[in-house]
Amino acid sequence: MKIKLAKSYGFCFGVKRAIKIAENSKDASTIGPLIHNNEEINRLKINFNVNTLKDESELKGIKKAIIRTHGITKNGLLALKNSNSEIINATCPFVTKPQKICEDISKEGYDVVIFGDKNHPEVKSVQSYAQNGATVVLTVDELKKFKLKERIAIVSQTTRKIEEYLKLIAYLVKNFKEVRVFNTICNATFENQNAAKELAIESDIMIVIGGKNSSNTKQLFSISKEYCKDSFLIENREELEKKWFKNKTLCGITAGASTPNWVIENIIGKISKIKV
Amino acid sequence: MKIKLAKSYGFCFGVKRAIKIAENSKDASTIGPLIHNNEEINRLKINFNVNTLKDESELKGIKKAIIRTHGITKNGLLALKNSNSEIINATCPFVTKPQKICEDISKEGYDVVIFGDKNHPEVKSVQSYAQNGATVVLTVDELKKFKLKERIAIVSQTTRKIEEYLKLIAYLVKNFKEVRVFNTICNATFENQNAAKELAIESDIMIVIGGKNSSNTKQLFSISKEYCKDSFLIENREELEKKWFKNKTLCGITAGASTPNWVIENIIGKISKIKV
Repeated sequence: MKIKLAKSYGFCFGVKRAIKIAENSKDASTIGPLIHNNEEINRLKINFNVNTLKDESELKGIKKAIIRTHGITKNGLLALKNSNSEIINATCPFVTKPQKICEDISKEGYDVVIFGDKNHPEVKSVQSYAQNGATVVLTVDELKKFKLKERIAIVSQTTRKIEEYLKLIAYLVKNFKEVRVFNTICNATFENQNAAKELAIESDIMIVIGGKNSSNTKQLFSISKEYCKDSFLIENREELEKKWFKNKTLCGITAGASTPNWVIENIIGKISKIKV
Repeated sequence: MKIKLAKSYGFCFGVKRAIKIAENSKDASTIGPLIHNNEEINRLKINFNVNTLKDESELKGIKKAIIRTHGITKNGLLALKNSNSEIINATCPFVTKPQKICEDISKEGYDVVIFGDKNHPEVKSVQSYAQNGATVVLTVDELKKFKLKERIAIVSQTTRKIEEYLKLIAYLVKNFKEVRVFNTICNATFENQNAAKELAIESDIMIVIGGKNSSNTKQLFSISKEYCKDSFLIENREELEKKWFKNKTLCGITAGASTPNWVIENIIGKISKIKV
C-alpha cells in the first residue's frame, strides 16, 4: 500500500510559536490546554513540567501562567492580571486579530456576528471583546433566529471552512443594508483544507491525525470524508485498525494544525508495517 | 390563451417620482433621457414639452434642467451649477445612496468596487463620487484583472441580480482581508425579478416589456429566458409577432421599472386579440 502525505498539513505558525514559548517556560501552567492535542500536552508536561489548569479559578499560587493559543476572555484576562502570576501570552496572533476587530467594530455600532462554535475557547475569547455581545452561529438557520440591526460585521473562527462562511455572508447581504466581512480564517487552515481535499480525491483511505477536540482537525476530517468515504480521525497509533486498510491501494494522510510531527511519524511507521 | 401578469412589475418608486417631477416642470429639459423608456419620454415631450438633452454640453440657454433618475456625475453637476439653468433633481434616492457611500467610503481609504455596467449612466454617476476612482466590473474574471488593496468596499448598480453580486463578494472575501458590502440593489428590482422568475416557470411564453437600453428590463429578460425559453423583450405593441404565440397556453407578462402602465395595457390589448 502506498502512503502519501497531504501537500500541506500539521503544525501552523501559531502552534509552533506557542510550543516554543511553553518549552521556554519550564514549570509554568497553561490556562486550559495550550493546544488541542493531548499527545503534545503530555510531552510538554513530561519534558518541561508545563502543567494545564482547568481555568482561571485555579490560578492561586501559580507563578507563571501561559495564555493558550486560543486566547483568553476579557474577564479571564482581568482575573489573570489580578492574580500574582507572571503572564506569558501564547495567544495565536491570528486570534488576537478577530478579538481586536470585535472590540473596534462594536464601538462603531455594528451588530457583531461570529461564525464559529460557541463552546470553543477561541470563539469565547473573541466574543468577549464585542462591547455589546456578539451573535455566535454555525448555520444560516441559527442566524435566522436572531434579530439583528441594519449594519452587520462578521468575523470567523480561524479554523472554519470558507464555503460555510460564504453561506452566512450570502444570507446577510440579501437581508441587511451593510455587511462588513472580515476574513479571519487563517491561511494555514486554508492550505491544509485544500491539500486535504486534493489528496482525499485520489485516496482509497484517509487518515486524519489530530485532537478530537481540535476544531481545525474536525474540519479536515469532514472535508476528507466528503471526498473519500473511508476516512478516519485518530489521535495516536493505538487507534489504528488493520481492517480499515484491507484492499486499499493509496492511503492519504493529513494532520491538524496542532498535531506534532512525532505523532504523525509514529502513525506512518505503524501503517507502513500493515500488510494488506 | 391565458394572459397572466407578474405579481410585481413595472414602475418603481424612483421612476414614478421622476415622472411626477417632470410633469410638474413644463418646458424643462432633462440631461440625458429621464428614464430608459422611449414611449414615456415621447409622452412627456408631447404632453408637457419636456425635452431631452444629449448631455451637459447642451445646457446653454436652457432655463430648467432636470437631473435624470440615474443621477449625474460630479463634473456634470459642476457644469450644471455653472450654467444659468434652474436645477430640478429627479435622481432616484436609491441612486443617491451609493453615490454617498462611494464618497464617504473612499475617504476612509477603501478600494471601491462597483458591480455594474461601466457604460450605464447610473454607474457613471456613482463612480464619479469615489475620490480615487472605482473599479467597475460585471464578472469575477474582470475583477481578477485589477490589483486591489487589502480593504475593499463594494456597491451594486441598483438594478443588478443579487446572485451575480454574491459571486463577486465570494471572490473578494476569499482573497481580501476586509470586504465591506453594501446592498444597494433596490427592493423593486428584487421584487420584480422574483415575480418574473415565478411567472416564467409556469408560462409557455413570456413577454418582457421595457426599454432595450434599460438595465433592469434586460435583467428581467435574462431571468425570464432562464426559466421560459420562449421569452421576448419588446418596447411596444408593434413589435409583437403572431407566430410567437402558436400552441401556447399561458402567456406571462412582466415589465421593467421604467415601463408605463399605458404601454403595458396596449400590449395586453393586442395579445388578447391574437388567435392561437
